[in-house]
Amino acid sequence: MTAVVVAASVAMLVSLLGTPLFIRFLIRRQYGQFIRQDGPTAHFTKRGTPTMGGVVIIGATLAGYAAATIVAGRPPRASGLLLLFLMVGLGLVGFLDDFTKISKQRSLGLSARWKIVGQGVVGIVFSVLVLQFPNEQLRTPASTQISVIRDTGIDLAFAGTTIGLFLFVIWANFLITAWSNAVNLTDGLDGLATGASTAVFGAYVLVAIWQSNQNCQNLVTAGPSCYEVRDPRDLAIVTAAIAGAAFGFLWWNASPAKIFMGDTGALALGGALAGMSILTRTEILAVLIGGLFVIIVISDVIQIGYFKMTGKRVFKMAPLHHHFELMGWGEVTIVIRFWIIAGLCAALGLGVFYAEWVVG
Amino acid sequence: MTAVVVAASVAMLVSLLGTPLFIRFLIRRQYGQFIRQDGPTAHFTKRGTPTMGGVVIIGATLAGYAAATIVAGRPPRASGLLLLFLMVGLGLVGFLDDFTKISKQRSLGLSARWKIVGQGVVGIVFSVLVLQFPNEQLRTPASTQISVIRDTGIDLAFAGTTIGLFLFVIWANFLITAWSNAVNLTDGLDGLATGASTAVFGAYVLVAIWQSNQNCQNLVTAGPSCYEVRDPRDLAIVTAAIAGAAFGFLWWNASPAKIFMGDTGALALGGALAGMSILTRTEILAVLIGGLFVIIVISDVIQIGYFKMTGKRVFKMAPLHHHFELMGWGEVTIVIRFWIIAGLCAALGLGVFYAEWVVG
Repeated sequence: MTAVVVAASVAMLVSLLGTPLFIRFLIRRQYGQFIRQDGPTAHFTKRGTPTMGGVVIIGATLAGYAAATIVAGRPPRASGLLLLFLMVGLGLVGFLDDFTKISKQRSLGLSARWKIVGQGVVGIVFSVLVLQFPNEQLRTPASTQISVIRDTGIDLAFAGTTIGLFLFVIWANFLITAWSNAVNLTDGLDGLATGASTAVFGAYVLVAIWQSNQNCQNLVTAGPSCYEVRDPRDLAIVTAAIAGAAFGFLWWNASPAKIFMGDTGALALGGALAGMSILTRTEILAVLIGGLFVIIVISDVIQIGYFKMTGKRVFKMAPLHHHFELMGWGEVTIVIRFWIIAGLCAALGLGVFYAEWVVG
Repeated sequence: MTAVVVAASVAMLVSLLGTPLFIRFLIRRQYGQFIRQDGPTAHFTKRGTPTMGGVVIIGATLAGYAAATIVAGRPPRASGLLLLFLMVGLGLVGFLDDFTKISKQRSLGLSARWKIVGQGVVGIVFSVLVLQFPNEQLRTPASTQISVIRDTGIDLAFAGTTIGLFLFVIWANFLITAWSNAVNLTDGLDGLATGASTAVFGAYVLVAIWQSNQNCQNLVTAGPSCYEVRDPRDLAIVTAAIAGAAFGFLWWNASPAKIFMGDTGALALGGALAGMSILTRTEILAVLIGGLFVIIVISDVIQIGYFKMTGKRVFKMAPLHHHFELMGWGEVTIVIRFWIIAGLCAALGLGVFYAEWVVG
């Protein structure tokens, strides 16, 4: 627990104090965000706000994890390192995208193809590696089973090792891509994705702590409701660092935003969320815990799908938060209400997670 | 735990769904807030916003507690009922104040004398009753000792029963008055006190759950770090209901506020916080957990004290949030940043609480 508190506190401080320095650096170099041309017109005033704030979130997370490792005097474990690899790797892809936008002075960034290639490489490396590194109990960081609140027994590797691995890689990459895009879409109003991420990763800290307390490996008498997860304590430390980093960043990212997280932040946070759901065996539960992101991505899918089928729109504009903006809600009203929904979803997810343990 | 979740969920739903009904009722009756004449001029536009939202917070809390009691099938305990008595009693004093403001069409409400009398009566009844109702272990809801993270041994009743009781009543009433005023002062920007209360009562839910798990009375082997508290589980249920009620109310109270909590809400929440600190034996720790309220009340005390001594002002305007408003920060920026501070203080308080348990 001490390590979890240290990770969160250090990450929080680094991002709270580091962000203004980073903003000053970006402004001096005249690196500003280019706002999408087809967004709400009210957003044109946001042109010029520095972006790539995800750099600070990632840096603060690494600092928090490092501090916790030193304080606790324990070597890092495979699960934590792999989660950080996924976060940093996707953050790097996002960074290249953000950087291209700035240097080419356009809103679109990396071509879609190169972005997919970059995400794919990081995602494939991650999903292959998480099946390696068995510990003494031969448990690997991830399993090839599809998980809801724990592994379900539906094993993607049913068809033999190679094709099974292949199916798992596809599944893991689907999750990674889906979550990165979900966070990226949510990151359209000041502080929205940052605040929601704080709630979601905060909830995951509790999930991982509980899995650590009720780990089959640690319990004297491992009952049926113990968890088959590798290194949950390490995962709690990483998510605490992420939650702390996001919380500190919120100070500067909340309305009126002095900096945006950019694709750097959105891909890193989305990737970390996907990775967490895979490593803690809560792939489907994550849909509830990160419910706000899911609602927003679904609103976008509905809008595009319905428009293609009928030529009509369901929402005034997708994703959902722009719909409410055009309905006349203030930006801040939407952000705060969406935070409340994010908090509710995270709390609901925790409730389901705990209820399953009580029953199971 | 189930009861805690039920309490929070029901209270949240009642306040989320009940507040708009209450707003409609108030508007139909033309009950609006009168904004202080000496506040920032930007606040004059808030004139006419319905107030007394605390009525919903209190009602939702009671509903959450009742639902949890029914679901858990356990009779209510003395501690929970006394905490609710304090909350409802002070809420009633606040309500009379709010109601006077509205019916007399002025910003000032009840005369200071009657407000003090009302608070005093409720506070004295509470502080006498919390020393009654011993359970089988002869433990009463409160003790006459001053507490930091637990009872310190500094016993106000050292001088014999009657005078000791008298000293305790003074101490308890000081805490109740201080916290009610602190929350009341904080309630000057849309959503500020409501959001901070959610964090503070959320933290207290965890304190009470931990005290319940580590209660000297329940443990098979009660070590030196077990807690001597009566009915912590009941207190966890009440605070979960309060946190849920505040969270649901925030939907409507956040910028731009459709309703204010009024003195009804501020006195009820401040009283509940004071009561919680007394009943869980964390009177001084509460200063850290509710740190934002303390910072704001101290800014006011400094301003007034320094002005009386030197005729000069430390802040442009007190309490602190108005200072930042006059410095040109947007209302929402101040609110969100103060929420972050409130969250940090609550987390820090929990850290200290836990660290004491680990060491002790």
